[in-house]
Amino acid sequence: MTLVVQKYGGSSLSDTESMRRVARRIVATREAGHDVAVVVSAMGDTTDELADLADDVSPDPPARELDMLLTAGERISMALLAMTLHEMGHEAVSFTGQQAGLATTDEFGSARIVGMRPDRIVRTVESGAVAIVAGFQGGAGDDITTLGRGGSDTTAVALAASVGADVCEIYTDVDGLFSADPRVVHDAHQLPVLSTEEALELAAHGAKILHLRSVELARRYDVPLHVRSSFSDRPGTWVTDDLDVVPADHPITATRKDTVEEALVRGLAHSHDQCKLTVVGVPDAPGSAAAIFAVISDTVSAVDMVGQTHTAEDTGLIDFSFALPVADGQRAADALRAAQPRLGFRHVTVTEDVGKVSIVGAGMRSSPEVPARLFDALSAAGITVHLISTSEIRLSVVVDGDQVEEAARVLHEAFDLPSTEGEARVHAGSGR
Amino acid sequence: MTLVVQKYGGSSLSDTESMRRVARRIVATREAGHDVAVVVSAMGDTTDELADLADDVSPDPPARELDMLLTAGERISMALLAMTLHEMGHEAVSFTGQQAGLATTDEFGSARIVGMRPDRIVRTVESGAVAIVAGFQGGAGDDITTLGRGGSDTTAVALAASVGADVCEIYTDVDGLFSADPRVVHDAHQLPVLSTEEALELAAHGAKILHLRSVELARRYDVPLHVRSSFSDRPGTWVTDDLDVVPADHPITATRKDTVEEALVRGLAHSHDQCKLTVVGVPDAPGSAAAIFAVISDTVSAVDMVGQTHTAEDTGLIDFSFALPVADGQRAADALRAAQPRLGFRHVTVTEDVGKVSIVGAGMRSSPEVPARLFDALSAAGITVHLISTSEIRLSVVVDGDQVEEAARVLHEAFDLPSTEGEARVHAGSGR
Repeated sequence: MTLVVQKYGGSSLSDTESMRRVARRIVATREAGHDVAVVVSAMGDTTDELADLADDVSPDPPARELDMLLTAGERISMALLAMTLHEMGHEAVSFTGQQAGLATTDEFGSARIVGMRPDRIVRTVESGAVAIVAGFQGGAGDDITTLGRGGSDTTAVALAASVGADVCEIYTDVDGLFSADPRVVHDAHQLPVLSTEEALELAAHGAKILHLRSVELARRYDVPLHVRSSFSDRPGTWVTDDLDVVPADHPITATRKDTVEEALVRGLAHSHDQCKLTVVGVPDAPGSAAAIFAVISDTVSAVDMVGQTHTAEDTGLIDFSFALPVADGQRAADALRAAQPRLGFRHVTVTEDVGKVSIVGAGMRSSPEVPARLFDALSAAGITVHLISTSEIRLSVVVDGDQVEEAARVLHEAFDLPSTEGEARVHAGSGR
Repeated sequence: MTLVVQKYGGSSLSDTESMRRVARRIVATREAGHDVAVVVSAMGDTTDELADLADDVSPDPPARELDMLLTAGERISMALLAMTLHEMGHEAVSFTGQQAGLATTDEFGSARIVGMRPDRIVRTVESGAVAIVAGFQGGAGDDITTLGRGGSDTTAVALAASVGADVCEIYTDVDGLFSADPRVVHDAHQLPVLSTEEALELAAHGAKILHLRSVELARRYDVPLHVRSSFSDRPGTWVTDDLDVVPADHPITATRKDTVEEALVRGLAHSHDQCKLTVVGVPDAPGSAAAIFAVISDTVSAVDMVGQTHTAEDTGLIDFSFALPVADGQRAADALRAAQPRLGFRHVTVTEDVGKVSIVGAGMRSSPEVPARLFDALSAAGITVHLISTSEIRLSVVVDGDQVEEAARVLHEAFDLPSTEGEARVHAGSGR
C-alpha cells in the first residue's frame, strides 16, 4: 500500500458537480488500494470574491484580517468535499492548516512554513479515512496565516514530505507541464518527466503551472511530484530526480529514461512581468558599480539580469542595465535618482515594455554551443536581445515586449522541441 | 469607563454598506468612552447559502463537517468588520470562537458551552482595540463546533459574563421586545424593561427576538441585556432584574420603575410549531398514566402541557392530551402504538393544526383572577381552549391553528396591553 497526497486547485473545484468528480477520483484511488490525504484550494473564484469584499471596505486592510477572511475559502471547499465523500460511502475528515499541524511564521499574507506535525492527518489516514487539508493556510501560535501565492501547492508538498508520501499529485486543468506555453507555441508537447532542477528554473522564469516554493520543497525533501489533469486519466508530468519512482506504465520507456537525462533543452518559459532599468553614464571608477547595485538591491525583490556597456556618446562612461520585476521598476529608479548626486551618473531610464524568454535543460551543462544557436535563431528572426543571463542549465534573454511570443516560437523550433508524437494534449479553453 | 459587549445579527450585516453602518455605531460607542467587544453573526443569508451547498452534496452530512462549513460565515463577517473599523482609523482584531476561548462539548451542531477563557479578548480591549468575536462557534479540543440556533446571542452573553461587561447589547432589526408580535397584534407596544424570568417565559413560548439559552445565561450570570435596533438610536428593551443598571435617560421614569414590577401581564407570545397528541381510552388503573408518560418522554424533546379528560363514550376510561413540538408528534405516536399492547389504550390521534398563546407577567403570582379573565375573553370571542398550562408567571393555552392570531389579539386587549403612547415602533418589512 502506498500513501498518496493529492492537491486539487480551484479550477478542479468550481462547483458541487466538480466536487463530485474530484470525490470519484479520490474514491478510485482508495479503491486501488492507496491511502489518501487531500489538499484543497478554495472553490473556483472564491478567493478573488473574498478579496473583492475586502477591497470594498478597505484599500489597505490589516494583513492578519485579510488572512482571516481568505482562509474561509478553503474551509468551505474542504468541508463540502468531506461531505461529498461521506455521501459516497467513504469516511473523510477535514482539517484546517492549523489542525493539520502546519506551523508558520507570523508574516501574515506570505508566511513561511517553520514545521509540520501531521499527527492528526496520520491518525486519520491510518484509521482508513480520507484526510482533507486546507491548502494555503497555517497557524502562527494562535493566529491564522496564509502562505501567499501558490500556497496550496506548498501545503501539499509539505504534507507529503512530513507524512512520507510516495507521491504528491498536483491536479490542475491541463495535462501536465509542456515544453512551452501551448497557447503561444502551438506545437508544444507535454513533458513526461522533468528533473527538479529543470522544474525550478522553469517555475522561476515564467512557467505558471508549478510554483517555485513547492518545487524547492519537493527537491529538498525528495518528494516526487506528478502534475496532471483532474479532468482526465492521462498520465501527467513527473518532477523527480529518481526515475525509478515513475510507474512502469508511464510513457517513458527504459530507453527514454536514459536519453531523457541527456536532453539539451527540455522546455522554455516566457513572461511579460519584467522591466529593463538602465543607468546611463556611470563614471568608470572603482566602486561605482557596487554603489549602484547596493541602491537597487535595497529596493527591489529580485534582480534577474545585469548588462554593462559603454555609454554611446562618451567612452569614458558606462551604462548598467538590469532586468527587474515590473512592479519594482519605478521604485528602483526613484531610489537611484535620490542617490544621483552621490553616484554621479547621467540619468536613469525604465523600459516596461519588455519580456523574457528562458530555455532550460540539464544537457546545457555540457553543450557550449547553446548560446550561439540561440543568438543565430533570434537574429535570423529579426529579434534584438537586450540582456542575457545564464545558469548552468538555463539561458534567459530579455527582448521587446511585442517579440516575446515570437521569440518563444523561434527558440522552441531552434532547439528541436516541437512534438513528434502528434498534437499537444491541451484541454480546450485552458493552457495555464 | 464601562465595557460594552455588542452583538450584531446577520440582518444588521447584510452587505459591506451595513458593515460600515455597524462600524460607525461601534466607533460612536468607543468615542463615548466605552471599551467594546463585538460578537457577529454571518452576513445576511450566508449561513443559509452554505447550508444549501451542503444539502446539494449530501442530505445527511457529518455534523463535524457541517460545523466546519458553517463557521466560515462568521469568519468572513468578522474579518470584514475588523477591516472596516481599521479603515475608519480604529484598531480592531477578529477572533474565532476558539481563539476567543469559548470551549464547548463536542456535540457538533448543538454544542454546549463548558467554559470561556477570554484572555485574548481582555488583552485586546485593554490595549484600546475593538475585539471582534465570531458568534455561534466554539472549540472542543482541536475541533470546531457550533452552538446551534441562536448561538450568536449565546456567545455574546457568555463573553459578556466572562469579561464582566456592564451590558450586553443585542442588535437586531426591530426596536426591542414588544408586548406581542406587532405583525399580528398591531397595537403592540415596545417593552422598556422585562425581568429575566419574564423574558425566559416569553422566549420559551414563542417570542422570536431573544433566544432561550442566552436569556438563561444572562439570568444565571447577572448580565444586563439591552435588545435594540442597529438601524436607529432609540433605546430598546432592557432585560434585567436590577433596574439600577438601566440608564437614567431611558424611558422608564423613577415612578414607572416601581410600577413596572407590578404589571399583571407584561406581554404575550404565540407560536404555531406545536401539535396536540391525544391518547384515547386509557384504562383508569394505577400506573397507566405513568407508563404513557414514560414512552413519550423517551421520544420527544419537550412536553409542554398535559390534559386529562374522561373518554366521551366510556366513563371507565381516560384520555390524555399532550402539547408537543410539531416535529416530534408522529414519532411519539409511533412509539405509543408500538407499546399499545402493553399500555392497553384504544388509539392515538395527532392534531398538527394547533397553536399556542402564552401570557407572561410577574404580577400573575399574586393575581388569582387571571385564568378567569383569560377564559372569559376567549370564550366571548368564540375560541375553544384545548389545553392549558401555567407557571407562576405564565399561562398558556393551545387553540385551533386558525384562531391563534385572533386569540393573541383578544388576550392583548383583555389584559390592557395596547399601547397608550402612540404606535408601535416597528421598521417596515421587519418585525421578527
